[in-house]
Amino acid sequence: MSDTFDLAALASLAGRLADAAGAAALPHFRAANLATDDKDQTGGFDPVTAGDREAEAAMRAVLRKERPDDGVFGEEEARTFGTSGLTWILDPIDGTRAFISGLPVWGTLIALDDGARGRIGVIDQPHIGERFMGVLGADTARASLTHNGNETPITTRQGVRLADATVFTTDPYLFNARESALFDTIRGRARLTRYGVDCYAYALLAMGQVDLVVETDLAAYDIASHVPLITAAGGIVTDWSGGDCRWGGRAVAAGSAALHAEALEILSTI
Amino acid sequence: MSDTFDLAALASLAGRLADAAGAAALPHFRAANLATDDKDQTGGFDPVTAGDREAEAAMRAVLRKERPDDGVFGEEEARTFGTSGLTWILDPIDGTRAFISGLPVWGTLIALDDGARGRIGVIDQPHIGERFMGVLGADTARASLTHNGNETPITTRQGVRLADATVFTTDPYLFNARESALFDTIRGRARLTRYGVDCYAYALLAMGQVDLVVETDLAAYDIASHVPLITAAGGIVTDWSGGDCRWGGRAVAAGSAALHAEALEILSTI
Repeated sequence: MSDTFDLAALASLAGRLADAAGAAALPHFRAANLATDDKDQTGGFDPVTAGDREAEAAMRAVLRKERPDDGVFGEEEARTFGTSGLTWILDPIDGTRAFISGLPVWGTLIALDDGARGRIGVIDQPHIGERFMGVLGADTARASLTHNGNETPITTRQGVRLADATVFTTDPYLFNARESALFDTIRGRARLTRYGVDCYAYALLAMGQVDLVVETDLAAYDIASHVPLITAAGGIVTDWSGGDCRWGGRAVAAGSAALHAEALEILSTI
Repeated sequence: MSDTFDLAALASLAGRLADAAGAAALPHFRAANLATDDKDQTGGFDPVTAGDREAEAAMRAVLRKERPDDGVFGEEEARTFGTSGLTWILDPIDGTRAFISGLPVWGTLIALDDGARGRIGVIDQPHIGERFMGVLGADTARASLTHNGNETPITTRQGVRLADATVFTTDPYLFNARESALFDTIRGRARLTRYGVDCYAYALLAMGQVDLVVETDLAAYDIASHVPLITAAGGIVTDWSGGDCRWGGRAVAAGSAALHAEALEILSTI
């Protein structure tokens, strides 16, 4: 069955949303007077900046004008429900901790969901000038990296077993005790484990540089873009039991089905 | 007493060394067929690539021609001793793990040491197009970031206490048990702790985005460039007891003397 919407036009729109978000966020990146508010209600530290708020507002302004019937689910403003069956899931700055540290591994995340699955996924890093995009057609898939205007197709790395894998997670201290024990098993068997790059780890996985990303406690806007991006690039993203993770929770992303199965053998004992 | 050498000319040469290293390393970055050798003799994983070797060879070729009387201490080739009293300390790719993961937070490190202290320090990230440079004259200091050709002065952030500080370390698992306990004390008191970016953490500290970097088990080529860079930017870098760390070991880098003292109060109990 073919789509009732023009996926190519929506992918082009997703690119313009990323443009708008980057233009709003970049003036705040490394600004000397960047103020950071704390959204955490429990004594922790959940930073948000004017960059986050203005970048989401910029994307919502474009969507209100061009796609008034679509739903919008963003990190910083209340969710709006549409009538088209399509929902945009937005994280204006994923990796706000990197953003407020001056580290250019944060990204603007944009997903388009058709109610059954994610169809478009974007990770955009405007300081480096990199845009990762995956588009899942009715029976097509394409994933690309555009760096400073030059677009090249990307694919995940195949044929890597866990013993040779490069594994990423954002922060080992985010796991609870049981999760931590399972992650330690993964880490102990993998060749190389790295920390701390939020969405950028999924971008590296989509382009075949990293093999496995394991995370927990994700919101929809943390993961929704990564599922179509990595799927379109030849990888697989699920929760730790192999189920749909596009609305958040625990996630494991792998470059190949075989490596995903190897990780799931460990993680599904959660 | 004024220098017997032309520091400005040597700083210009340091920039050309970085150019040469970047030109040699970048073709290997994210290359699909990048081979990784393991230098570790003890069953661990100490990766080195053709990018590391060719980038160091490119810098050494320039130095042989232009500064044949200077010593050269690089990560990948045998140390050579000169007669000029000046030594170049080179890490062609600091953060090889980031390099082989496709993550652009590795850097080429270049230091010039006059036998008493570091005089020039460079962190160069050619994929992003960023070059951090600090130059310590006989009684002058300047530090700058050049991004895609645009040079701006940089300074460390002053007036931040540990409770409000952003702290970086590369990998929490590199600490031994006692070091780990001390780092946990730092982490518990700081506002924000981040992992995994090797030299880039020191670059962020030099530009006032990060307040404290705490590391252990460093070689001279891991840290020599950071001391003049951060000193020139207004910060301070020592070992955990407040002594000279430019030949390696444990290091603590802080944006201000007050924050450095606060960290040392904890770390010096090692």
